[in-house]
Amino acid sequence: MRRVGIVGFRGYSGAELLDLLWTHPGVEPVLLEHRSEAEARPVPRGTAATETIKLERGAIQDANLTAVMLATPHEVSLELTPMLLELGLLVVDLSAAYRLRDADTHARWYKHTHPQPELLQSAIYGLPEFYRDRIPGAKLLANPGCYPTAANLAIRPLLKAGLLEEGAGVVCDAKSGVSGAGRKPTLKTHFCEVTENFSAYAVLEHRHVPEVLQNSGITEENFSFTAQLIPIHRGILETIYVRLKSGVSAQQLLDSYAEAYDNEPFIRLYDTGVVPDVKAVQHTNFCDIGFTCEGRRAVIVSCIDNLIKGAAGQAVQNLNLMLGYDETEALL
Amino acid sequence: MRRVGIVGFRGYSGAELLDLLWTHPGVEPVLLEHRSEAEARPVPRGTAATETIKLERGAIQDANLTAVMLATPHEVSLELTPMLLELGLLVVDLSAAYRLRDADTHARWYKHTHPQPELLQSAIYGLPEFYRDRIPGAKLLANPGCYPTAANLAIRPLLKAGLLEEGAGVVCDAKSGVSGAGRKPTLKTHFCEVTENFSAYAVLEHRHVPEVLQNSGITEENFSFTAQLIPIHRGILETIYVRLKSGVSAQQLLDSYAEAYDNEPFIRLYDTGVVPDVKAVQHTNFCDIGFTCEGRRAVIVSCIDNLIKGAAGQAVQNLNLMLGYDETEALL
Amino acid sequence: MRRVGIVGFRGYSGAELLDLLWTHPGVEPVLLEHRSEAEARPVPRGTAATETIKLERGAIQDANLTAVMLATPHEVSLELTPMLLELGLLVVDLSAAYRLRDADTHARWYKHTHPQPELLQSAIYGLPEFYRDRIPGAKLLANPGCYPTAANLAIRPLLKAGLLEEGAGVVCDAKSGVSGAGRKPTLKTHFCEVTENFSAYAVLEHRHVPEVLQNSGITEENFSFTAQLIPIHRGILETIYVRLKSGVSAQQLLDSYAEAYDNEPFIRLYDTGVVPDVKAVQHTNFCDIGFTCEGRRAVIVSCIDNLIKGAAGQAVQNLNLMLGYDETEALL
Amino acid sequence: MRRVGIVGFRGYSGAELLDLLWTHPGVEPVLLEHRSEAEARPVPRGTAATETIKLERGAIQDANLTAVMLATPHEVSLELTPMLLELGLLVVDLSAAYRLRDADTHARWYKHTHPQPELLQSAIYGLPEFYRDRIPGAKLLANPGCYPTAANLAIRPLLKAGLLEEGAGVVCDAKSGVSGAGRKPTLKTHFCEVTENFSAYAVLEHRHVPEVLQNSGITEENFSFTAQLIPIHRGILETIYVRLKSGVSAQQLLDSYAEAYDNEPFIRLYDTGVVPDVKAVQHTNFCDIGFTCEGRRAVIVSCIDNLIKGAAGQAVQNLNLMLGYDETEALL
Repeated sequence: MRRVGIVGFRGYSGAELLDLLWTHPGVEPVLLEHRSEAEARPVPRGTAATETIKLERGAIQDANLTAVMLATPHEVSLELTPMLLELGLLVVDLSAAYRLRDADTHARWYKHTHPQPELLQSAIYGLPEFYRDRIPGAKLLANPGCYPTAANLAIRPLLKAGLLEEGAGVVCDAKSGVSGAGRKPTLKTHFCEVTENFSAYAVLEHRHVPEVLQNSGITEENFSFTAQLIPIHRGILETIYVRLKSGVSAQQLLDSYAEAYDNEPFIRLYDTGVVPDVKAVQHTNFCDIGFTCEGRRAVIVSCIDNLIKGAAGQAVQNLNLMLGYDETEALL
Repeated sequence: MRRVGIVGFRGYSGAELLDLLWTHPGVEPVLLEHRSEAEARPVPRGTAATETIKLERGAIQDANLTAVMLATPHEVSLELTPMLLELGLLVVDLSAAYRLRDADTHARWYKHTHPQPELLQSAIYGLPEFYRDRIPGAKLLANPGCYPTAANLAIRPLLKAGLLEEGAGVVCDAKSGVSGAGRKPTLKTHFCEVTENFSAYAVLEHRHVPEVLQNSGITEENFSFTAQLIPIHRGILETIYVRLKSGVSAQQLLDSYAEAYDNEPFIRLYDTGVVPDVKAVQHTNFCDIGFTCEGRRAVIVSCIDNLIKGAAGQAVQNLNLMLGYDETEALL
Repeated sequence: MRRVGIVGFRGYSGAELLDLLWTHPGVEPVLLEHRSEAEARPVPRGTAATETIKLERGAIQDANLTAVMLATPHEVSLELTPMLLELGLLVVDLSAAYRLRDADTHARWYKHTHPQPELLQSAIYGLPEFYRDRIPGAKLLANPGCYPTAANLAIRPLLKAGLLEEGAGVVCDAKSGVSGAGRKPTLKTHFCEVTENFSAYAVLEHRHVPEVLQNSGITEENFSFTAQLIPIHRGILETIYVRLKSGVSAQQLLDSYAEAYDNEPFIRLYDTGVVPDVKAVQHTNFCDIGFTCEGRRAVIVSCIDNLIKGAAGQAVQNLNLMLGYDETEALL
Repeated sequence: MRRVGIVGFRGYSGAELLDLLWTHPGVEPVLLEHRSEAEARPVPRGTAATETIKLERGAIQDANLTAVMLATPHEVSLELTPMLLELGLLVVDLSAAYRLRDADTHARWYKHTHPQPELLQSAIYGLPEFYRDRIPGAKLLANPGCYPTAANLAIRPLLKAGLLEEGAGVVCDAKSGVSGAGRKPTLKTHFCEVTENFSAYAVLEHRHVPEVLQNSGITEENFSFTAQLIPIHRGILETIYVRLKSGVSAQQLLDSYAEAYDNEPFIRLYDTGVVPDVKAVQHTNFCDIGFTCEGRRAVIVSCIDNLIKGAAGQAVQNLNLMLGYDETEALL
């Protein structure tokens, strides 16, 4: 039984982490109480409490932990990670703090100089479908962003198989449920501003863009990305438009996906012409992918639950690989 | 053309006030900018701007206003009203600051001593269907709360006609859209906390209770009130349970409503056994009332739009009476 | 491994049954395909299929089943049950076909003479918290309705402890998510009719009323029930108003609930003054109960997921008792 | 006062037509009752009834109508239009029956041979911002589809100003509220299938595609269109991705829009980098357009209310032009 700490357990991703780890036969979750946790929900009498300790160096040292999972803003992750690594703990960071390898790119998109550029080099980007081999040895695991997970899983097999027209633009029109914006109340997440509405934000300048570019090899000039808010709690659907090389067939697309993912436990492919919807993946760690094509135009639809495969579920998948458990433990 | 100031125009009720007054042929709305207005929505280029002035004694004095409408928390209304009255302006206050005649009752429910008890005496409670005669002469108009408007309109005709068992309890199970909670972001109004949820709050202790009691004559011991949050933007539905005197018929209930409301422009009655829903009244100043009865049990359903008949619309209805316009101006 | 058939597996309750039984270590679900199943959702390639057989006497006889669960309209249950019993199968019926012991009461509320009145006598009403002892021997198990489950669990401990004023009315204001209306498309369940709306239906004449009366002992004259549609997928919240005997304290209410439910795995009680919301029970088999009281007025809030504790979950709970499994198997 | 008939007044677009025409000072709406009208909502007592006549040649001849508006499926429009024209009535058809000039294109996308190809030639496509001059003389007015309205208004100024890379693809990722699917209940519009979901449909093969192509001049090979269902009642947002010619600036885009639309009463432009959301246009006849660009990538967001500018509102705008009223009558 390994004891694993969770920071940010009252946020949406953190609460999901706790839910998943409670069902994990090899892990005992421990809550690390941060200074400014948001308000909790009322708890029925008799609900078993999870052990909670103060988020302080001494308390953590005494807590006999193996790993700590950070479901925190990147500013908080930047502050906590060096201390946790120093204590010899494995760190799974759900924030964007260590996702970009290049410090300049980080500085450009996150508007601050990265305080620990050396950790950007040693951190492992935890997209198991691409980088499974590197994950078991990771000390610091950078859990991918929600949008890049759905985008990269949909695009890379086609790029790798050489099916896309070179130099042609790739459009990723992304939509997410509101939990992606976090639990902190803001006007943007006020029920009355969201219900019966649909809105685009960060058009062409979303911080997840460089994460897609880094892991796909597409250039910024060829990548158009729009993030949009769906009036739902959870789930991401991305509609991705690519231009095929002349003569490429639907079967070739299907084959490239099959080759990439046939043994993947968390990728589900659809028949040609059938595309997934958000409901198909809610409350699961699956990424569902379907596509339609017509001549040289192809449209791919990629769906995940932003809180699971886009955050807590993928983090547990990575933790499983780091600790030597079956990759699907607590996730199926 | 009378110039009427609006304070709190970025809140949901205030924005609704502005929308209504823009269509009023006799009123020119003027925005009074308060120190801490919430963030505005982006405005398309070329949308005609409304005149905006600082909310300061001097600016108001120079603005040639006839009246000011306060769509503000009661603390702000308590602070601004004496100054506005002193300047000779009519005040229509949408908050709870001046709704209860009795200072002790106010103190008990609002947890503070009322700073201007004399204004509680002179303020007119603006429920036109009950108190139409007093409104034209009002200097300070206390616009009713949303829940009490729907409740009192539904209950009073039956009480007045003597159809209810004396001493029997009246149950008012009230449900409201989220805009009733205001535009200030809180965890309670976060989209993810509200969507796919339904919750009760302030059970038996909602601040609107004394307003129902004051205007119906029911005793607190006989009145059970629960407020509940519907995951919708706007609208109130109240389900009211009463016990009829022995032998009272559905026709008598219908007659009592007809007698009370047949000439009312904003009350709509339904056939026996048919009840309104929220959609029937959204974006209107109507209060729709329907009921079913069976032996001595009767259930009345009363619906309003909390932002219109429950706030801004009723305020304009009152303003019309105060300024001598047709009562329905800008409201039909 | 017992093989258990499911009829109506494309409806909302039936799909939930299948989801639950897939995780049951002692049960292998088998789908019985009915003549008019609704349209299915697209299935990702490679998703493991469940065995499906025709819903015909011969096929069922050959299928080596132990039990059949009927997630069907009561008309269909009335048609299938005698044949299934004749084949020696245990039947768990989620419809209202066999819930009322009295054939006349059934006839009055369901507008048809019951074709198998003898089965009304032998059927066991499957509310384990009240009738646990009778369930293991049941051949035909009538799974309770969703509204009566939440109502009876909330009311009976108070009645049993003698805390309620005799002859005083009990009001049950019930609200349900739309899945309670089934998957068959109707205008009432059209998205545009439901979203941003809230509506009451079957006021004082809902078919679940006699089920509450039969299991609580309250008389119809003293019970006022309104069903209402919340614009959400799943979940029930009932707000129940009772009149306490003089001198009854909050502690006595709490004690009566504790005595009734302290060992129940699926009832969760809240502290006095704290009430559950729908989110607390969604996707669980829990019934959460909280209350507030003030003098002789008490308001109880009772929440369940209508598809789980109000349908499929309770059916599995009953199946577990009938087959000798731990009552919570596949449910926690 | 011109009398104008409405067919399909219980559908969502038809109900909206009625609402708009009730406020029109020059038009008296008359309801033409069709054989299979959907169920109506309950009507409060005393609500003024609109005159209703049977949809039959004789009754229509006697009804002294000037025009008839068809808010019907295209099959019904194809059946009724010749008769109405023969009676000398102006026809405003909200369906797709007469929108495509080319009968072969119609046959390909609508899967049937057009029965009145000559009417395809004489019908006027009613997008006033493009074809205002032709509308006053129209006998048969084909009201544009909702998606093509938002798309063409956003794209054409850029094409006309020659700002787009020739031969480069245009992507239109379109999202609509559920009312676009009509009031007829189907599994696709069932509340439980839509809420908390988001789904794509008719990817690359939506019937509105040829309508965009016909009025923009883009070739099918260069146009990728996906329709998607937002879990809201009403409103369309389209995110349109284009490739600019080298050196084109944001100011040039802004100028091209300003030149096209500065005098248009129903087009509202936003500042560079600011984009509209659905809420900005709900319940209005506006089309709001904003964009962002970066190098040669530009993303345009175009929003309308599908029931107003995308259907009933634009139909009234066209009717105003046909009857000689101010174009904005009943619409502002």
